[in-house]
Amino acid sequence: MSATATPLAAYAGYKHFITSSPSAGVVHVEINRADKLNAFHEGMWRELGAVFNQLSRDSDVRAIVLSGAGDRAFTAGLDVKAAAEEGSILGGKANLDTARKAARFRRSIEDFQACISAIEKCEKPVICAMHGICLGLAIDIACCADVRLAARDARFAVKEVDIGMAADIGTLSRLPKIVGSASWVKDVCLTARDFNAAEALAQGFVSKVLDDKKAVLAEAFKLAAFISEKSPVAVQGTKELLNHARDHTVEDSLRYTGIWNSAALQTKDLQDALLSNLQRRKPTFEKL
Amino acid sequence: MSATATPLAAYAGYKHFITSSPSAGVVHVEINRADKLNAFHEGMWRELGAVFNQLSRDSDVRAIVLSGAGDRAFTAGLDVKAAAEEGSILGGKANLDTARKAARFRRSIEDFQACISAIEKCEKPVICAMHGICLGLAIDIACCADVRLAARDARFAVKEVDIGMAADIGTLSRLPKIVGSASWVKDVCLTARDFNAAEALAQGFVSKVLDDKKAVLAEAFKLAAFISEKSPVAVQGTKELLNHARDHTVEDSLRYTGIWNSAALQTKDLQDALLSNLQRRKPTFEKL
Amino acid sequence: MSATATPLAAYAGYKHFITSSPSAGVVHVEINRADKLNAFHEGMWRELGAVFNQLSRDSDVRAIVLSGAGDRAFTAGLDVKAAAEEGSILGGKANLDTARKAARFRRSIEDFQACISAIEKCEKPVICAMHGICLGLAIDIACCADVRLAARDARFAVKEVDIGMAADIGTLSRLPKIVGSASWVKDVCLTARDFNAAEALAQGFVSKVLDDKKAVLAEAFKLAAFISEKSPVAVQGTKELLNHARDHTVEDSLRYTGIWNSAALQTKDLQDALLSNLQRRKPTFEKL
Amino acid sequence: MSATATPLAAYAGYKHFITSSPSAGVVHVEINRADKLNAFHEGMWRELGAVFNQLSRDSDVRAIVLSGAGDRAFTAGLDVKAAAEEGSILGGKANLDTARKAARFRRSIEDFQACISAIEKCEKPVICAMHGICLGLAIDIACCADVRLAARDARFAVKEVDIGMAADIGTLSRLPKIVGSASWVKDVCLTARDFNAAEALAQGFVSKVLDDKKAVLAEAFKLAAFISEKSPVAVQGTKELLNHARDHTVEDSLRYTGIWNSAALQTKDLQDALLSNLQRRKPTFEKL
Amino acid sequence: MSATATPLAAYAGYKHFITSSPSAGVVHVEINRADKLNAFHEGMWRELGAVFNQLSRDSDVRAIVLSGAGDRAFTAGLDVKAAAEEGSILGGKANLDTARKAARFRRSIEDFQACISAIEKCEKPVICAMHGICLGLAIDIACCADVRLAARDARFAVKEVDIGMAADIGTLSRLPKIVGSASWVKDVCLTARDFNAAEALAQGFVSKVLDDKKAVLAEAFKLAAFISEKSPVAVQGTKELLNHARDHTVEDSLRYTGIWNSAALQTKDLQDALLSNLQRRKPTFEKL
Amino acid sequence: MSATATPLAAYAGYKHFITSSPSAGVVHVEINRADKLNAFHEGMWRELGAVFNQLSRDSDVRAIVLSGAGDRAFTAGLDVKAAAEEGSILGGKANLDTARKAARFRRSIEDFQACISAIEKCEKPVICAMHGICLGLAIDIACCADVRLAARDARFAVKEVDIGMAADIGTLSRLPKIVGSASWVKDVCLTARDFNAAEALAQGFVSKVLDDKKAVLAEAFKLAAFISEKSPVAVQGTKELLNHARDHTVEDSLRYTGIWNSAALQTKDLQDALLSNLQRRKPTFEKL
Repeated sequence: MSATATPLAAYAGYKHFITSSPSAGVVHVEINRADKLNAFHEGMWRELGAVFNQLSRDSDVRAIVLSGAGDRAFTAGLDVKAAAEEGSILGGKANLDTARKAARFRRSIEDFQACISAIEKCEKPVICAMHGICLGLAIDIACCADVRLAARDARFAVKEVDIGMAADIGTLSRLPKIVGSASWVKDVCLTARDFNAAEALAQGFVSKVLDDKKAVLAEAFKLAAFISEKSPVAVQGTKELLNHARDHTVEDSLRYTGIWNSAALQTKDLQDALLSNLQRRKPTFEKL
Repeated sequence: MSATATPLAAYAGYKHFITSSPSAGVVHVEINRADKLNAFHEGMWRELGAVFNQLSRDSDVRAIVLSGAGDRAFTAGLDVKAAAEEGSILGGKANLDTARKAARFRRSIEDFQACISAIEKCEKPVICAMHGICLGLAIDIACCADVRLAARDARFAVKEVDIGMAADIGTLSRLPKIVGSASWVKDVCLTARDFNAAEALAQGFVSKVLDDKKAVLAEAFKLAAFISEKSPVAVQGTKELLNHARDHTVEDSLRYTGIWNSAALQTKDLQDALLSNLQRRKPTFEKL
Repeated sequence: MSATATPLAAYAGYKHFITSSPSAGVVHVEINRADKLNAFHEGMWRELGAVFNQLSRDSDVRAIVLSGAGDRAFTAGLDVKAAAEEGSILGGKANLDTARKAARFRRSIEDFQACISAIEKCEKPVICAMHGICLGLAIDIACCADVRLAARDARFAVKEVDIGMAADIGTLSRLPKIVGSASWVKDVCLTARDFNAAEALAQGFVSKVLDDKKAVLAEAFKLAAFISEKSPVAVQGTKELLNHARDHTVEDSLRYTGIWNSAALQTKDLQDALLSNLQRRKPTFEKL
Repeated sequence: MSATATPLAAYAGYKHFITSSPSAGVVHVEINRADKLNAFHEGMWRELGAVFNQLSRDSDVRAIVLSGAGDRAFTAGLDVKAAAEEGSILGGKANLDTARKAARFRRSIEDFQACISAIEKCEKPVICAMHGICLGLAIDIACCADVRLAARDARFAVKEVDIGMAADIGTLSRLPKIVGSASWVKDVCLTARDFNAAEALAQGFVSKVLDDKKAVLAEAFKLAAFISEKSPVAVQGTKELLNHARDHTVEDSLRYTGIWNSAALQTKDLQDALLSNLQRRKPTFEKL
Repeated sequence: MSATATPLAAYAGYKHFITSSPSAGVVHVEINRADKLNAFHEGMWRELGAVFNQLSRDSDVRAIVLSGAGDRAFTAGLDVKAAAEEGSILGGKANLDTARKAARFRRSIEDFQACISAIEKCEKPVICAMHGICLGLAIDIACCADVRLAARDARFAVKEVDIGMAADIGTLSRLPKIVGSASWVKDVCLTARDFNAAEALAQGFVSKVLDDKKAVLAEAFKLAAFISEKSPVAVQGTKELLNHARDHTVEDSLRYTGIWNSAALQTKDLQDALLSNLQRRKPTFEKL
Repeated sequence: MSATATPLAAYAGYKHFITSSPSAGVVHVEINRADKLNAFHEGMWRELGAVFNQLSRDSDVRAIVLSGAGDRAFTAGLDVKAAAEEGSILGGKANLDTARKAARFRRSIEDFQACISAIEKCEKPVICAMHGICLGLAIDIACCADVRLAARDARFAVKEVDIGMAADIGTLSRLPKIVGSASWVKDVCLTARDFNAAEALAQGFVSKVLDDKKAVLAEAFKLAAFISEKSPVAVQGTKELLNHARDHTVEDSLRYTGIWNSAALQTKDLQDALLSNLQRRKPTFEKL
């Protein structure tokens, strides 16, 4: 949040995330636990899901920027110590039957996944502005965003293997589908090694690298503002259709697209956009 | 079409596309509306579908090059003015019930998609040689081709968001599956911003950049000629199997491949190719 | 196999592959027909399947390196002469009914595919260290590995079109899913042209290029050793989940991941890894 | 066609099918080759596809009844003698390479399938009224209809195995999905044995059996008339969504349904239907 | 709720549903708006979702019976009058842009579907005991249950077509997958005609018909009690695996089953069940 | 095996299954452990897989009948006592880490599933002739057969829930796809209750009920003999295409069918069958 930004009233109830609006229609969401490198405990990821579910249907919102508070980290990932205490990683103290323990793990993973997936399901574009430490859950989160930007100091790792587990909040499901090289994906996921912003850019994980956190936020705000001035019918349809395409055949995707646009093309935005183009003026579009 | 090329008799009936044969088995299809930057009206995309359906089963044809006539554009995309008049974008003047209007849009999109998909479904490899302005529909078309080459002056944009709509003729369905970086795809689709040939090459959208339109056509003809001398059983099978693989699991794709080759391996081409290899001479293969 | 490596007793029965263990938990498998450029005949690919099926469940094994013996080739692909004599390519001498011949081809392709797929299905990570000639089947094999590394002298080609057939042992099914640019995939598959290590790296087919065969093997051994020291529960789960993700929707993949980890998270490795992290010592993990 | 029915002008150009309109919005399509038991040659199935493609978008049409002319047969299936002469079954006289012959068979099957699938893809409900001989292609055709009714004298068989081939125009793809017992499907498809109307009803292949051809046509006309008085937005949406559901997961189907109805629910038909219900009068709905 | 049943404290907060426990581990949920034929308004379906989400993870619950209060109806479906007032069917009074109205409908349908799907996603088996009027939404709800039982007086209809719309809360997605005859499904969905308990049984929609509401409830309670005495690990796994199978290939389903049971087979229930079998005594199983 | 049948030499090495040939091209496989109600231990299911893999490619075989030896049982299912001793159910005595135990269960289930699936994957039609006790694994096995016949005394149960586990060898994956009523499937799978031959017939699980074991075998032999006289190209293609259809969309299935028949239609069987039909004589077909 820039120093002068005003917190958003509608989102004032959240404890772990600061929301502000750098420009009309743009919301900036900050992970707010800088003293712990923005590491997540259960209360935080549950709240993250709630924030994005609310943003998804908030018609005042047209584009979202997600970043981490403080200088050091986007997020260091799951707060393993907290998770161990809560029992969500080590299974608590209960001396349960294996199958019953499995049911608890399954439910807990399911809830956790659903909260992070809320970013992907959010109807509005989400730009992830990453800097500093970006470990484990940082990658799960970033994979759900639409556009990923990084500061030059960003240091990434799919860290889960190093704590004795396969990543289960989305990285292994999404990362292979958002970059091109399967050999690289296997390399970073199997070794848990670090990779920097330049490597992330070369592999297509992020689409731009900026000098520092300030610059990456500025770029993210600019991009979000640019998108927020376009027709929300067009923008939100584009996000939905691209997400749908990832998981369907081209045939299915074309059919779905046709149905989607059979309503969307009846929007007044189309006329407004066409007319504005002809008149070389900037159109304005109603909320969606 | 090179100045000296002779139009192909079998394709003489088409009004909006010039076809010629730069070398044996190769057909060059040119979008022929240079004075309007090769922008498409309904008559054109319907004809485009017809041309590629005919090429698909024309046994004289082994490889196809698609380009735009004139110096300025591959195509500037849909001729929005014409589309508005035809009613295919703005829904015409009819004061229809919303559901009935939706049915018309759906059918119209379906027909439009089918015509462009004819390029992908064409049994022969299609090389798309792009130069100058390549907007909107240009990307939908290019995504259906097998190989994309660009002149250095090519300027691309997934332009639809700027006219208030999500692209619906194939770009959103295919683009994420033909390049590696999902972050880049979301960026260009959500912003409608331009990208040039160098960026297209870096992202894998095109696989080669040449100096100018002349050079990109020369390269495309060379590549098409090279492919057209190979066994058409091998070449057309390869196209089919790669397209099938995109939309199926590896398991399914392997099974389909086995069935496909259970007939294809009985071709004489295999023997001819093997023998020619041994004898270090160039084999010739029958039409398919 | 490095000069000092000792062949592994459990794998001594194989004729066409040399196995050794460069470090604890790592197995090096060498294609052993250097005098014929490691070209494969039926006995070899059947044995390759057997080797990897055995490695998959051998709890002494945690990571595998696959390479070709000799200086000249990873493998020149299928030994076409042998295949023609065996009848597996040209259909033998039998004057069979076309449908009956097709059944034989289908079964033969199915068996061949299954043997190569054994590398992909192997529960342990497989690193493919490629040098020199890497033609045809070389690509099918490499596509099944998890990480691909190349020596600078590696020369690759999806060669099948040049012998009059579409590749049917996996390249056309997997290659489009392990690199980013569909235009490049179509180019190399339709033309059968060579591409070198630099191009393979730029396209993401391999994730690292080393100076020569010696260096690529050293890097592969180092990487395998690094992986083999991590929790096998975490490592093998990561391979499985990434492979599953490739062929399923994100939704399906998340669900499968949750079920998988509902058992895997009950491992002691998690505690051991966490504790070791805190104590800044290297954990050791039991066999899996 | 009942004796008094008037042929439809818009469909007068078809040679092999008689169309008439037994009541407003209902079209009766009769297979018109009674002297040959309504057996199909290529000209007929190509025309069948054309008829249903035209009906699909003809806004005067709301429900369709398909039956066979004459007393003896719905259809005896493919006219094998004609097919052999045309070369579509026995591959003609051409002494072609096996792979090239396969390509022709594949294209021919594809065209044939597309023509029969036109019945399924037709936007309006199709009621298949079957009597007498219903062999081979009769089943392929019936499987594409929405509702199947039979006269007591109907005699069915999936006859293809008896002419040395697996059915390839749709029966094997659709029959297992429209009846409940896989054991029964395998039985009738592997043996090519006859089954009668009672068995067809018991297995759910048809949903009603009537006394004779006259009665089955009367029932079909009544059902079609009943459907044609309902909102075409509701009816055609219902057909589309049920067809979509067959080939998709429940999750996908729900999502598609939501998109579809986001436009369809904006129809005036909904208000008209609700109001008519309250006022206990029969609503009328505009064409779609 | 039988007269003597005690309402469940944990579910006392719900207004529209009465919950009680006819026997240990069994919960009876009653739709509680008998004076309006149990017709649903938005508050009710939102609460229904909440009830089943809570039941899903309530370890005191092992089997659930769902029925409608009063003598006349399971439910008459959506309360159309209320829906029209709320704007969820007729789109409210707002004079919105078509695309924006579509977005509201889409979100509203999505929420509605999610609440009804909660029955299907509930981890515990749900037995639907139906009597009297069962229209529209009644079918959507019943399709989500595991076992459907009916009283002889039950009268069913997929009623939506009669109010000018295609059913969109699940019937069209699920009904074709839970009965055998597609012809019957199309018939009842396209005509909106009534069908009675005998027809529902013959078509496999319900698996048993009882004399009256009292008898159907008694049977449902007996069945639920029977199931609730079995291992919940076995029972809930069986429900999950059957639901998964419906939407996946056999191959995928087998793989998922193996992973699921790799944890579930480690349960003590297995030993307890085996031992009890040997000792011919009734085992008791811990909560899950 | 009828008293006079001669054991088949090629299958003499199997210990747990008796094979004989009741007529040319037909093989009868008997589960041979009558004294233990044909209950399966690991050696048996491994051998069952081997038998069917061999039958699949044995060109002397055209149809298969599977039954259980003795008067009392088709099979009582898994020999739970043996399984407990082998450790395949109770996980053995090893005091293993949960994740490592899970890996063993997973591999063991995978192997077990693969052996039973061999019946489904067998290229030749398999008729399952069931009598007496048919519990647990009996259903898994029967679900893999093509046609199921039962003696009147057959008593079926999906018994697994009663030993504290969800069935994992295929019943839950296949049963919902081979009968029509999901309510019935859930009922029998959740309760583990018995059902008799009449109920199995009514639900479509079996397609015929005969008086006793002798009659069911006679019927199975007759059916197998009838099928074995037809073109094996047609018969085996039909089995393959029906199995493929179950797990694919109609669109995919049609495409696969076209490819399959592009080779199969080149068979001489087609001409032979057509000619024999004309000449009203019985054709004979070569082995496949």
